[in-house]
Amino acid sequence: MIHFGGDYNPEQWPPSVWESDVSLMLQAGVNLVTVGVFSWSRLQPAPDRFDFGWLDRALDLLQAAGIGVCLATPTASPPPWFTLQNPDQMPINQDGVRLTHGSRDTYCVNAPAYRAACLSVVGELAARYTPQLWHVHNEYGTTCYCDFCAAAFRRWLSARYGDVATLNDAWSTDFWSQRVTSFEEVLPPRATQYLGNPAHLLDYRRFVSDAMLEHYRSQRALLTGAPVTTNFALGGWVPVDHARWAREVDIVAIDDYPATLEDRAFAADLARGWSTDGRWMLIEHAPSDQARVVAQPYLSRGATGILYFQWRASRGGAEQWHPAMVPHEGPDTPVFREIAALGSALRGREPVTVTASTALIYDEQTMWALQAPHLPPRDSDYDATARRWHRALDGPVDVVPPTAPLDGYDLVVAPMLYLMPAAVHRALRDYARAGGRLVLTAGSGLVDEHCRVTPGALDDLIGARRIGSELHDVTATVLHRGPDGLPALTENRYGTGIVRYATTDDVTQTAFEGLARVAAGDPAGDLA
Amino acid sequence: MIHFGGDYNPEQWPPSVWESDVSLMLQAGVNLVTVGVFSWSRLQPAPDRFDFGWLDRALDLLQAAGIGVCLATPTASPPPWFTLQNPDQMPINQDGVRLTHGSRDTYCVNAPAYRAACLSVVGELAARYTPQLWHVHNEYGTTCYCDFCAAAFRRWLSARYGDVATLNDAWSTDFWSQRVTSFEEVLPPRATQYLGNPAHLLDYRRFVSDAMLEHYRSQRALLTGAPVTTNFALGGWVPVDHARWAREVDIVAIDDYPATLEDRAFAADLARGWSTDGRWMLIEHAPSDQARVVAQPYLSRGATGILYFQWRASRGGAEQWHPAMVPHEGPDTPVFREIAALGSALRGREPVTVTASTALIYDEQTMWALQAPHLPPRDSDYDATARRWHRALDGPVDVVPPTAPLDGYDLVVAPMLYLMPAAVHRALRDYARAGGRLVLTAGSGLVDEHCRVTPGALDDLIGARRIGSELHDVTATVLHRGPDGLPALTENRYGTGIVRYATTDDVTQTAFEGLARVAAGDPAGDLA
Amino acid sequence: MIHFGGDYNPEQWPPSVWESDVSLMLQAGVNLVTVGVFSWSRLQPAPDRFDFGWLDRALDLLQAAGIGVCLATPTASPPPWFTLQNPDQMPINQDGVRLTHGSRDTYCVNAPAYRAACLSVVGELAARYTPQLWHVHNEYGTTCYCDFCAAAFRRWLSARYGDVATLNDAWSTDFWSQRVTSFEEVLPPRATQYLGNPAHLLDYRRFVSDAMLEHYRSQRALLTGAPVTTNFALGGWVPVDHARWAREVDIVAIDDYPATLEDRAFAADLARGWSTDGRWMLIEHAPSDQARVVAQPYLSRGATGILYFQWRASRGGAEQWHPAMVPHEGPDTPVFREIAALGSALRGREPVTVTASTALIYDEQTMWALQAPHLPPRDSDYDATARRWHRALDGPVDVVPPTAPLDGYDLVVAPMLYLMPAAVHRALRDYARAGGRLVLTAGSGLVDEHCRVTPGALDDLIGARRIGSELHDVTATVLHRGPDGLPALTENRYGTGIVRYATTDDVTQTAFEGLARVAAGDPAGDLA
Repeated sequence: MIHFGGDYNPEQWPPSVWESDVSLMLQAGVNLVTVGVFSWSRLQPAPDRFDFGWLDRALDLLQAAGIGVCLATPTASPPPWFTLQNPDQMPINQDGVRLTHGSRDTYCVNAPAYRAACLSVVGELAARYTPQLWHVHNEYGTTCYCDFCAAAFRRWLSARYGDVATLNDAWSTDFWSQRVTSFEEVLPPRATQYLGNPAHLLDYRRFVSDAMLEHYRSQRALLTGAPVTTNFALGGWVPVDHARWAREVDIVAIDDYPATLEDRAFAADLARGWSTDGRWMLIEHAPSDQARVVAQPYLSRGATGILYFQWRASRGGAEQWHPAMVPHEGPDTPVFREIAALGSALRGREPVTVTASTALIYDEQTMWALQAPHLPPRDSDYDATARRWHRALDGPVDVVPPTAPLDGYDLVVAPMLYLMPAAVHRALRDYARAGGRLVLTAGSGLVDEHCRVTPGALDDLIGARRIGSELHDVTATVLHRGPDGLPALTENRYGTGIVRYATTDDVTQTAFEGLARVAAGDPAGDLA
Repeated sequence: MIHFGGDYNPEQWPPSVWESDVSLMLQAGVNLVTVGVFSWSRLQPAPDRFDFGWLDRALDLLQAAGIGVCLATPTASPPPWFTLQNPDQMPINQDGVRLTHGSRDTYCVNAPAYRAACLSVVGELAARYTPQLWHVHNEYGTTCYCDFCAAAFRRWLSARYGDVATLNDAWSTDFWSQRVTSFEEVLPPRATQYLGNPAHLLDYRRFVSDAMLEHYRSQRALLTGAPVTTNFALGGWVPVDHARWAREVDIVAIDDYPATLEDRAFAADLARGWSTDGRWMLIEHAPSDQARVVAQPYLSRGATGILYFQWRASRGGAEQWHPAMVPHEGPDTPVFREIAALGSALRGREPVTVTASTALIYDEQTMWALQAPHLPPRDSDYDATARRWHRALDGPVDVVPPTAPLDGYDLVVAPMLYLMPAAVHRALRDYARAGGRLVLTAGSGLVDEHCRVTPGALDDLIGARRIGSELHDVTATVLHRGPDGLPALTENRYGTGIVRYATTDDVTQTAFEGLARVAAGDPAGDLA
Repeated sequence: MIHFGGDYNPEQWPPSVWESDVSLMLQAGVNLVTVGVFSWSRLQPAPDRFDFGWLDRALDLLQAAGIGVCLATPTASPPPWFTLQNPDQMPINQDGVRLTHGSRDTYCVNAPAYRAACLSVVGELAARYTPQLWHVHNEYGTTCYCDFCAAAFRRWLSARYGDVATLNDAWSTDFWSQRVTSFEEVLPPRATQYLGNPAHLLDYRRFVSDAMLEHYRSQRALLTGAPVTTNFALGGWVPVDHARWAREVDIVAIDDYPATLEDRAFAADLARGWSTDGRWMLIEHAPSDQARVVAQPYLSRGATGILYFQWRASRGGAEQWHPAMVPHEGPDTPVFREIAALGSALRGREPVTVTASTALIYDEQTMWALQAPHLPPRDSDYDATARRWHRALDGPVDVVPPTAPLDGYDLVVAPMLYLMPAAVHRALRDYARAGGRLVLTAGSGLVDEHCRVTPGALDDLIGARRIGSELHDVTATVLHRGPDGLPALTENRYGTGIVRYATTDDVTQTAFEGLARVAAGDPAGDLA
């Protein structure tokens, strides 16, 4: 069975609409809806008052119709009364501006009153309901710089580094007089005069990911009777290390709002790569009158569910123009008909199992490291580069984190893998030594996990000395040269395997496709 | 008689210059000057000290020369001593940054100490002078987000909605957990994590307009002996609903700083459309050596006055390079000669009366609604679209608010009228039903006054179902199809009138002009 | 002897690397290294604890090898403990955001605790070491808007203007009601509603320059036994009036990070122009494998030293990818070999002496004045215009401040010299009257030292009335006309000299070069 459905927010509509909703859901083949994502202000209208009546009725209607429920905890948006009663617990941005409610996602996971309020409302939900799936929070991602965060960051650093000498060494604090003598001297990367320290910036994103993960875990501990997940949001701004989080969810679930079918394929391969058992679901994407075409890349890559945001278009609010399964104009519309056609097509189908012999390594910490302001603008470069390689490879491809087991793959491509901890160095060597085919590129392996430059670290693998962007003392075979006559692609024997190295990917799309094909193992003649 | 003149700031010059000024004014045909706009720090050098001596002398000189005075209240820029004594009464921006003096317009109309200081200085002026025209404040427009504003906003909401249930419904607060349980929980739209609520944002602009209007009224109540007005500033950033304000001024007066003669024509038709009796004046525009050409679009559209900013170029300050009637180089210059030629040409002329059979509906609240960040960037689109239709229509055209009486017009065009309260729906239907010709476009009638989507709301008028950007079940006549074969312009009989509908205005200028011509009633053959 | 070397930061490396560093320095011909620039957190790990042991050892190694030391005071970046103990002494930006450590340069020179801390650590250094050169601070440039700055600004204004009446007149405060009745009412140009007052903005930059100069002087007073300097940073953001500072350093030393050799030549001529004796050094620039070519423009213009940032590439920190004399990959690299080749070529050479007969006037206060937000965006225009004229002139050229003695030059070019105090007016007239050849341009002489417009101020020099951008009543000879037939270049006899005037420089590069050549004295035929 494949789950099919979307976000359903009955609280936005009078109960008279609900029955029509359920009937239309059945008509569309919907078998799972996500309920309650932003319902906190309805569920708990005041600190000391809960109201579950409306939710009871909505869930009863769904249950009676045999429609499964993915029940969300509403903690991504505390209600207005929370701001009023706890102004000092609201998040603060890098410039020290205190945010207020008025949108969504105004929370600080390190603020004690917010955490207590979360556990209270989640405890009530857990005690009352047993859905088919628990959906914790929504698209974790708010970064805060308040004093609660500062204190939690220091505890996190203390646990990570043990003492300040180790921290100073890891962060290279002798540059620009940043040496600390106690953890108390460390702050979040708040507004400062000029470029921040890359190691400091990266550790803060790691900390934010871990702090949000702890928040997730504290809710998960209360939820029983059904698998638990949260919806992963993709994008360079998101401070969530999904590879790490994927071990903590019962099923990997992603939200995906890309522009192309190729990007959908990438996201699907990525979600499967984060999963431990190949099972994953698309828990949000945008409905359209091309729903069947759009669903294809996900379904063919193992999705166990195809869900949308959202069921019925909202009359008001900031996403009133977001597409919906039931558009403003109702079910007698091309979008709803297409959704229903897909629902019908999915009936009785089972998720496919995907087996790939190629892996592409994708690392969110590398993406964060490359976003540091001391580097050229790379907000999208890492992600775009990974996606470009993904498109050029002949699928199926597993997009995996650098910590994934690599044995079993015929080919492993690690484009622009800037950040390379010692364990990754070992894993890549083990893979190649044992007969694997490994592809590295210009940006790969430049720094260690603390963003410290590691000159020569890949030279043995590549079979050449890298000096800046050039190769010297090349012992590898040159497979291809660029227009300047310099090596563009080399091949080095390593153990019983081979390592290919692309000196640049800043070439035309045609040239890139040729390069990628040869790097992936096609005859070099194609490049001529 | 047509008023001719400009802003005159004698306080910037030694008295020795004043006599020369008056003599040059007479030479240039000046008969009205605006005095005192930014003179507060001169008129009240300290909280407990006023100095009117210099103003007495300046006004005496003008009066002796027979030059009329438009006397301004100086409240748009409180003096430096006000900041020093009342730091907590200064305005705060969306990020919570408290502003200080150092420019102009640093005020919060809801700050009690500022309001008291305004009434004090205006009371003194009112007791002492009787000008030909009172000019309250200058270009109302400063938006503040302080706690005084928050409290006033809540009172305004309470008066508008009565109870929070009605507010919650109007604002669609069930989206993103924004439901409030008391007005105390409502804040100004301060910095928040993501997109704001469109209804909240729009109501805040309405509130700011009303709060400034109350400030205007409090001054007007003190001013006697002459008509009272304020200068309307045009532009997307201005939170003033001029259609509403126009009922509160004795004559509509606009400032206009556009790039083209067509835009001047639009502004003139707009000012006349705001006026109740067709009388209006251009109270500020930029002098140049093309003054006669520039004045033409205003004069031919009924302006009763042609005034400039400013009489004599300022030696220093932020507008020292702003053009002036008497440039830095003095009267022996092309600009002054041209100004004098216009002044001479205006002598003995009377304002023209304009009678238009076409109305173009222009609505500043719609402009604000379309500026909400959840929509594609539209800062200029609404205004630009309205101006494009205006240019394409064969004048004369009245540019009127949606609340204007429409009977009597042969043609009413309502381009991109996104925001449509029930009363506007009724007025348009009444107009068409009684035989009017009405033109609507793709953006028209999408939401109600609270920014809630109103699917199908225009279908009866249009004669088709609008689903997203497409027409379905078309019963109207298709007058023209686009390159994709889909209807581009339709015509529907409604009562004894007709309603034409343009499905898009995103076309080339040539195509647009053809479309607009047919929409306005020319033979459809022109589009072939 | 020519100094050759760069910034050396031994604290970033274990002592085991130091001996190798010294040996490589000798190999590269290094004879001067700048030590300690950002070492405060190492030198003073806690408020009450100093650690000079490591610096003693590093300096001993250098001394033993005969390598000179330029010892820096570390005050540009107070250590993290300073923030923790003195949060209220950290700098504040225009929006009121308090900055924290985490980068570099987070200081306010008017904060008393910071000043005391500086004098303490500098006193310790001065008591312990006698280097070849003292290097105070680093690239002065942090602008702060805190209350300490506000108070110091008021004292500075009081000393400059004596009374508020003079200040009001100088600042043209009658525009926009900015008249103050006491110095207490003056604030730094913090966030305000709209455009700031140009005179206020310019005086604040002058004040910041003077406040930093006082900070420099307070350190210099403690330093003995060697010449004292600081490194001048170039760029529009820098609030340092280097012409004024140059009188306070024992040798002018500049940092230069441009894109072209022409820009290096300009910087070299500028540094020499700031110097009183023609001696100056390049104290920072970027190493590369083109070091000999890059050094040429500096050496041929009198540089007494060629120094780089930095000796050994940093493993971590925000400048880890900044080029270095010893790259990450070590000395067996093209860059190090090139550096050593230059070092070898410099051995035994002496600085050249430059004698120029042409002067180009360059004024940082004019650059600041042109950056005021009431003017068209000119961040780079003034600097770019000066550089464009510099390139077009046939060298050698002295780039000098407007206060420099001009007699002795055959030609003086003052492009876009917007800001012209009375003394500069006098100096230019004296120069021309006595037979000099003077070139002025469209932007020259528009305002006085308080940014007040001075219409007609250059008319006698130019031989025409300037009205806006046009010439009227031209008595000068027209050397060249533009495509519009209007004068493009005029020549006027003044005393026994001549004054040429270019009415615009907004022309193609080819046209500009012809114009500049004729303006500089070539036959006018070249322009045909």
